[in-house]
Amino acid sequence: MSPNCIFCRIVAGEIPARLVHEDELAVAFTDAAPQAPVHVLVIPRRHVANLLAAHDSDPQLAAHLLAVATDLARHLGLAQRGFRIVVNTLEDGGQSVPHLHLHLLGGRALSWPPG
Amino acid sequence: MSPNCIFCRIVAGEIPARLVHEDELAVAFTDAAPQAPVHVLVIPRRHVANLLAAHDSDPQLAAHLLAVATDLARHLGLAQRGFRIVVNTLEDGGQSVPHLHLHLLGGRALSWPPG
Repeated sequence: MSPNCIFCRIVAGEIPARLVHEDELAVAFTDAAPQAPVHVLVIPRRHVANLLAAHDSDPQLAAHLLAVATDLARHLGLAQRGFRIVVNTLEDGGQSVPHLHLHLLGGRALSWPPG
Repeated sequence: MSPNCIFCRIVAGEIPARLVHEDELAVAFTDAAPQAPVHVLVIPRRHVANLLAAHDSDPQLAAHLLAVATDLARHLGLAQRGFRIVVNTLEDGGQSVPHLHLHLLGGRALSWPPG
């Protein structure tokens, strides 16, 4: 755990969040500033700064997060109409919290370009 | 191969594309309508309609595509400034070609929301 990391504090239960999934490796919760009717973040329990760091240290972890996000899309009723998964890395990517997270967005037609 | 699929035809070499990566399972090439200075698509060689289908039939394939996209981000010089990976599924997701593909975008600051 990284003590000043808001996502580590959500994992630890120190900051409340609306959880939609929990397993041994990952937690998912609704985004506090949702950009679509369904907007969920899927994060690893342990602190990993971004996708590059996860790829280098534990590629299976990144794979697990993608699998959880895909499962959640179905579970949250997005398998018929569709959804978008977005992973931001560092400044150009628009990563706002330096703890790896996958965005799952759905419930409306997402436009193009994606930012 | 799905004979009417434009991405299958790129894999088969029937339609030209600027390839940036090839391996046993995946191919990556520049998007024909780029939305950023770097805009690459990472696709499986075999025809898989979307992320849900890959998740059900071969979750390791989706994981591999994510790993390839992350490697390519570094290889294409995006590891310092950052990048965004986007996966569109079905209509609401804005999926335009029904052959699974991950978008890797970088070389400019991506904005929010992501579409």
